[in-house]
Amino acid sequence: MTPEQVRREEELSATVLASFEATPDVRLRTVLTSLTEHLHAFVREVRLSEDEWQAAIDFLTATGHITDERRQEFILLSDVLGISMQTVTVNNAAHGEATESTVVGPFFAAQSPRIENGDDLAAGAPGEPCWVEGTVTDTSGRPVSAARLDVWEADDEGRYDVQYSDGRTTARAHLFTDRSGAYRFWALTPTPYPIPDDGPVGALLKATNRSPMRVPHLHFKASADGLRTLVTHAFVRGAELAGDSVFGVRESLVRDFQRLPPDAPTPDGRVIESDSWTRARFDIVLAPLPG
Amino acid sequence: MTPEQVRREEELSATVLASFEATPDVRLRTVLTSLTEHLHAFVREVRLSEDEWQAAIDFLTATGHITDERRQEFILLSDVLGISMQTVTVNNAAHGEATESTVVGPFFAAQSPRIENGDDLAAGAPGEPCWVEGTVTDTSGRPVSAARLDVWEADDEGRYDVQYSDGRTTARAHLFTDRSGAYRFWALTPTPYPIPDDGPVGALLKATNRSPMRVPHLHFKASADGLRTLVTHAFVRGAELAGDSVFGVRESLVRDFQRLPPDAPTPDGRVIESDSWTRARFDIVLAPLPG
Repeated sequence: MTPEQVRREEELSATVLASFEATPDVRLRTVLTSLTEHLHAFVREVRLSEDEWQAAIDFLTATGHITDERRQEFILLSDVLGISMQTVTVNNAAHGEATESTVVGPFFAAQSPRIENGDDLAAGAPGEPCWVEGTVTDTSGRPVSAARLDVWEADDEGRYDVQYSDGRTTARAHLFTDRSGAYRFWALTPTPYPIPDDGPVGALLKATNRSPMRVPHLHFKASADGLRTLVTHAFVRGAELAGDSVFGVRESLVRDFQRLPPDAPTPDGRVIESDSWTRARFDIVLAPLPG
Repeated sequence: MTPEQVRREEELSATVLASFEATPDVRLRTVLTSLTEHLHAFVREVRLSEDEWQAAIDFLTATGHITDERRQEFILLSDVLGISMQTVTVNNAAHGEATESTVVGPFFAAQSPRIENGDDLAAGAPGEPCWVEGTVTDTSGRPVSAARLDVWEADDEGRYDVQYSDGRTTARAHLFTDRSGAYRFWALTPTPYPIPDDGPVGALLKATNRSPMRVPHLHFKASADGLRTLVTHAFVRGAELAGDSVFGVRESLVRDFQRLPPDAPTPDGRVIESDSWTRARFDIVLAPLPG
């Protein structure tokens, strides 16, 4: 590149960055300046062609047009580029033995049925019965009673209830830890499933030879007064953990889901009608509030 | 930050970048890797909050939903972040005295009426008459005959014909240089106008105290066999040049538009019926084809 070309490119970036100098909100200015600086550096580093720029415009347009009340393709895009998981990581600083966070995903619902300890949250969704139990403690090891746990998962066909067309609520509930900080419930053994891959993000995964599959997991959101709210997953050991399409897997979140025959005694005497059932333990440690 | 926190963030970025390693198209891999690396660095540098991440998702969703056949809000977004202009700059390397490029903008149309040298391309669009003349040469100074010039501009209310609801074509035409490489036509004196600012990009400009206005300009696209196609503007000297909302202004593209009384003799004897008219000269130098 000629010195004149270098000067033109640098001068342009400087002019654009300077245009944000009068932004009243200092934080907005910081965020936009950094984003713009990185996007300009990207264009210059890869020498983005005008056809590639047009392809990016077309990709974003298609992503916007497929997004509606039931489908959020921009979140999917953020997920498959690891932006969602990096944001989670930045906002949930490592704190001693506190349980690690992972992505919330697009299927959380603020409203869910309340169940009691020992109840079955599957509510008729198809899948293998799975007994889940554990405790909630703080980082000093003290049990946290009355901690709220929101739990949600896909059925064994890989569909969450919000993806059903009939509006029923299944495989989703909330419950509270007992006085000893313990909890227990029946759910479904998590199974692998693809993220929605018939849109622009699916095309991106295909073009990069990446799998749309998510590693089997059970979603947890744990909250308690005076402690940092945790959004995480329990992952199933033995599944293919390397290729999670949204980069949610943390080794520390992988658990044994022990598979048992139907005649093995269940913790609460439930009679198993399917060919097998599983059980897992997921102890949760909540970090203190930041600051 | 603790070493464990640094490790988690770096490891995540490395995992995401590694996921593109099996991309069959080497160029796609290069582009996606650089983009992802920069977006991760952005999230980590500004410590993007989860609320800010959600605001970005909402912004992109609104940008997608306002985009349709007639409005391209993603191009506007690229324009106001200077991405469009940086892409133009990267793809049109400085070459001696060749005329500089600038943004094409959203209002170019491949189809336009052909006019002869000396004709009026305004075709009834409201505005002050403006005589434009110049030559097209190569970087050795040789005249380029039969070079095609596409010219388009807004009317004096700031609207391009494609923004009219009645489908008529005005202030837009193409013509060819004569045997001496010269061209001349009547048009309208360019006036300032805002980019569409009633959508998410307009809100971004407001939040950053930036003006939506574009500096007055006349669009040119110049093409000729064996030379690099040029997309550029002629800007009006004396206008406020610093605040162009899409960063299109290059000092080398600013021209005098001399304002004259109606009784000043016109180059072709045209009788001026308005209070004034202007004239400008815009000589164009085309670079050789790259490589």
